[in-house]
Amino acid sequence: MIGPGGATRAVRVMRRRGDESRSARDLLAVEEPLEIRVSWTDAAGRKHTEPLAVTMRTPGDDFDLVAGFLHGEGVLSGVSDLVEMTYCRGAEAQEYNVVEARLAPGVALDVERLRRNFYTTSSCGVCGRASLDAVQAQGCRVLTDGLRMDARLLPELPDRLRAEQAVFERTGGLHAAGLFDADGGASIVREDVGRHNAVDKVIGRAFLDGALPAVDLVLVVSGRASFELVQKAVMAGVPMLVAVGAPSSLAVDLARRFHQTLVGFARDGGSNVYCGEERVR
Amino acid sequence: MIGPGGATRAVRVMRRRGDESRSARDLLAVEEPLEIRVSWTDAAGRKHTEPLAVTMRTPGDDFDLVAGFLHGEGVLSGVSDLVEMTYCRGAEAQEYNVVEARLAPGVALDVERLRRNFYTTSSCGVCGRASLDAVQAQGCRVLTDGLRMDARLLPELPDRLRAEQAVFERTGGLHAAGLFDADGGASIVREDVGRHNAVDKVIGRAFLDGALPAVDLVLVVSGRASFELVQKAVMAGVPMLVAVGAPSSLAVDLARRFHQTLVGFARDGGSNVYCGEERVR
Repeated sequence: MIGPGGATRAVRVMRRRGDESRSARDLLAVEEPLEIRVSWTDAAGRKHTEPLAVTMRTPGDDFDLVAGFLHGEGVLSGVSDLVEMTYCRGAEAQEYNVVEARLAPGVALDVERLRRNFYTTSSCGVCGRASLDAVQAQGCRVLTDGLRMDARLLPELPDRLRAEQAVFERTGGLHAAGLFDADGGASIVREDVGRHNAVDKVIGRAFLDGALPAVDLVLVVSGRASFELVQKAVMAGVPMLVAVGAPSSLAVDLARRFHQTLVGFARDGGSNVYCGEERVR
Repeated sequence: MIGPGGATRAVRVMRRRGDESRSARDLLAVEEPLEIRVSWTDAAGRKHTEPLAVTMRTPGDDFDLVAGFLHGEGVLSGVSDLVEMTYCRGAEAQEYNVVEARLAPGVALDVERLRRNFYTTSSCGVCGRASLDAVQAQGCRVLTDGLRMDARLLPELPDRLRAEQAVFERTGGLHAAGLFDADGGASIVREDVGRHNAVDKVIGRAFLDGALPAVDLVLVVSGRASFELVQKAVMAGVPMLVAVGAPSSLAVDLARRFHQTLVGFARDGGSNVYCGEERVR
């Protein structure tokens, strides 16, 4: 799962325990910027390219990350919207830090609206309610009711996620996200220094595999459940989100709105089910 | 420290332990959007207002957050750059979710450049090196050498930070950041659902108190040390950053560039000093 550039880097560190101090080798999780560009051809046959966002991420699974990001922003609805993804290779220093996603003809793209998302909101007001409405306006629907999971499995899921984390074991510095089936089997697991990136990588991989909406899967995250993580899960049609940490108020509000099952504090043999209890047996 | 709207909200939750399940009361950390606007009067006496960013934050200390954000983005250099901050009260739902910062006459503001920061980069390339150069271009200088701290204090700092966290104790769901003196005494501590917001609130408070650059203080954060957190600390002139978690590769690179002392894994009686060992006794 480690891509160009590598996900770890070795450094020297002064390790201190009490009054003792010694020089030691330490592995860091790599953090590098990734610029996400989209390109398309207009009706007159002219090619356009626009930079959309820069995210600080751990190199590796970059195409998954870009696909997940564009799906989460509503740019990509299905695999056929995407012609190809390529690294833009130019000046030596940025070989693998720019990915261009070429969109299929006819994919509607409002670059200004997307950029506006990053710094401001609609005129309808700034509040939690408006944030929920905005997700609905993106075309998200209430989640299906099929999945059921044994309550005893819930606190085990973060441990299973951790067991799949190749890089975390060596650096202690990465977030993880994973899609699991109703029996607790891992389907896709990804790591990143950024919580949102880890989720984008997982959902992007599922998107590229044609596996969305993921109506039979559970999304497990290594940290807390924020509004944005619930939003990404709802966009992907995932009926259950399990976090090892606490959810925020707006995360619970959004999960309720879309009938998602939201589980927090899944650890130490227990869990808190904030909404959607009907999916927990 | 809790502002308008409150930092916590009570919900009902199904608490599961093994095969048992019971309904219980749970406190959530509140997450709500905050829109940050700047306004200024031009040479012809016309007032301009521009929305700059929306962040999902925990209500409370909003003026600290806005001041810290604007300082981190290079808009505010000193207290005299800021005339006042006000909540924009209009439609009922958004009473306390829009803050306007009125800039003093003559403060240079390039709104387009700031917005560009949120979605793209300069033309000089996308790589870690360029990210470091960008911080230097913001006018950050190499940090002074005065502060010294006892190595045995380092692993205690996160515990002291936690002890100051009023809301975390009740929700388990908030990040924290704090400025501490060389003897380990807490100076300013703030909480938020977002790591960056907690740091912005702390640095913003110090900024409003006229205490920047904070050359005699240590910034302590409850999570990991990313590029962006080191950047904010460097902008504030803080010579030492202590994280309870791991630093990323680019965080270490940036700290080295500005001679900042970067400490990670400060816990369980030990710590790792990644650079700037000369400040650790």
